Amino acid sequence: MDNHINFNFHTLSLSLLDQRHLPAKETYFICRTWRDVQRAIKNMVVRGAPAIGVTAAFGCVLALAEYASDAQWMQKTSEALKELAKARPTAVNLSWAIDRMLKIMNYADFSSHELLNLWLEEAKAIQIEDEEICRAIGKAGAVLIKPGDTILTHCNAGALATAGYGTALGVIRAACEEGKSIKVIADETRPLFQGARLTAWELMQDGIPVTITCDNACALLMSRGTVQLVITGADRIAANGDTANKIGTYGVALLANHFNLPFYIAAPLSTIDTSLSNGSLIPIEERSSDEVREYCGQPIAPPKVPVYNFAFDVTPASLITGIITEKGVLYPPYEESIAHAFNTRETQ
Amino acid sequence: MDNHINFNFHTLSLSLLDQRHLPAKETYFICRTWRDVQRAIKNMVVRGAPAIGVTAAFGCVLALAEYASDAQWMQKTSEALKELAKARPTAVNLSWAIDRMLKIMNYADFSSHELLNLWLEEAKAIQIEDEEICRAIGKAGAVLIKPGDTILTHCNAGALATAGYGTALGVIRAACEEGKSIKVIADETRPLFQGARLTAWELMQDGIPVTITCDNACALLMSRGTVQLVITGADRIAANGDTANKIGTYGVALLANHFNLPFYIAAPLSTIDTSLSNGSLIPIEERSSDEVREYCGQPIAPPKVPVYNFAFDVTPASLITGIITEKGVLYPPYEESIAHAFNTRETQ
Repeated sequence: MDNHINFNFHTLSLSLLDQRHLPAKETYFICRTWRDVQRAIKNMVVRGAPAIGVTAAFGCVLALAEYASDAQWMQKTSEALKELAKARPTAVNLSWAIDRMLKIMNYADFSSHELLNLWLEEAKAIQIEDEEICRAIGKAGAVLIKPGDTILTHCNAGALATAGYGTALGVIRAACEEGKSIKVIADETRPLFQGARLTAWELMQDGIPVTITCDNACALLMSRGTVQLVITGADRIAANGDTANKIGTYGVALLANHFNLPFYIAAPLSTIDTSLSNGSLIPIEERSSDEVREYCGQPIAPPKVPVYNFAFDVTPASLITGIITEKGVLYPPYEESIAHAFNTRETQ
Repeated sequence: MDNHINFNFHTLSLSLLDQRHLPAKETYFICRTWRDVQRAIKNMVVRGAPAIGVTAAFGCVLALAEYASDAQWMQKTSEALKELAKARPTAVNLSWAIDRMLKIMNYADFSSHELLNLWLEEAKAIQIEDEEICRAIGKAGAVLIKPGDTILTHCNAGALATAGYGTALGVIRAACEEGKSIKVIADETRPLFQGARLTAWELMQDGIPVTITCDNACALLMSRGTVQLVITGADRIAANGDTANKIGTYGVALLANHFNLPFYIAAPLSTIDTSLSNGSLIPIEERSSDEVREYCGQPIAPPKVPVYNFAFDVTPASLITGIITEKGVLYPPYEESIAHAFNTRETQ
């Protein structure tokens, strides 16, 4: 797969592979303003915590480019970034990327055009780093997979959810690159089917054996011994290891626990929000009822039936066997291992 | 709702509300031969163990009507019934109803036209009994529901799954009729959305508050205290209480167990197959991959991706708080309580 997030500095536009229409259609959504980027994130043209971070960084560049010649450029840009940060509430990589840009703005008294070049370099760096980090995550996690294993994954934590290679799917790709013969089961992941649409598509392109299944078949498959371990991505991890990820992850983790299967999270350190002591503090997004009541304009349910449509849930740290990061696999107690991983990073 | 299974003796046809198109369209599927009935059951025009039983009984009538003037009528009818019994493998009510018809055929040396009248009476009796049984199940189960409770149900165990009133939804209806103010959460129930399409539609028609949700939101809702108890139907119950029901029921039961919530099965004794000592002996139907890969002709997944599409799973008896039957609520140890319920029935 070519890069799905492409910034063009000459035309000042960001081209995003429109994930809403995959795998049926490969179309690109072109963002010319930061508001286009905000819309793309909100409407899930692009999704997945690390990919949202990369996209937001380019969104900052578009905001600054728009206001660079305005006397109030700094104020207007800051306000735009504040709005951009609100596009979706759960994935912490969104505010993490924007904070990285703000840090540069606040570092010295740059002109708007100086800052524009610095931000563009920073956004590119975030994109390049993200794929490198995914490869490091893959390498760290591949040792956990044995030849012959079948790995269950939920939602899409692949190349499409990152700058490339993926987190959970990065681990799977790395295991395949090491020559291990493995299989993947992709939960379809209602309501937006990221597993059936995106994970299946990515893995088929790479020739990695994948089978999809409805989310509700998990207990049956685990009880039959069809699954050996679970790996998912994350949208935000608290300091104690509690992990927000796509709705359904918590249930999968509880079932894995019941059937004594290892349950791993794969995520970059940028997904860990050490400012939150535990998962109850992570904001959980509720999305439109129509995501559940319709599919491609076809009604599924009575048009006015009330819907619970929480986009995420929080898996308690106690259910997580390990968190696979670019600094290696973190194990419980997570307060300590997470703090240690951040300290190691700071001192390098 | 008017009766969704209607036999017309004058035209020798069975009219079935086509559940595949609900709630978008209320259309009827007309069966003029037993093969039409076989197709209707196989393709899920009608579904739900008790409703399949009632439909199959009328299917027997159509088979006999077709062959009644044939010298080989008994052999041909018997062969047709054997085929009809294979339409779907899991719900035991299918063979239960056919066995009831065969018992009459084998009782005496009836002429084909005598038998036709007897079978028609028997099929009508099965239909009338089934609704009466549902009302008895409702009454027996309503005491388990407290005012203010929110009940989670999976799939559709309502009027549409029975001759009328429903099993799990029968309990909910009876609690409402007793004046209890309750709420229902209907799991959407992938892949065919019986919860979102049928349970939501039925309950809205009755003015019972219902909210739908994706199957994978179950753990989150239970962890938040949104649910007080779970009631589902059943497709086949073994002598030890192990229960086959719509795929996903096992996972819901495990989660209910984890969150210390009561998990009840509501089903008539005709759904209990005392010939099977435990659930591992219940055949589990696998259905077409396209049920998962498409919705209303709209692709969901890559067209050739392999799919696990098991239509049912088996919930171990150890996870079931009680089985609500027309003979009252059966409790563990189920070998004893089930045997007792059957003995009581026989001696009445």
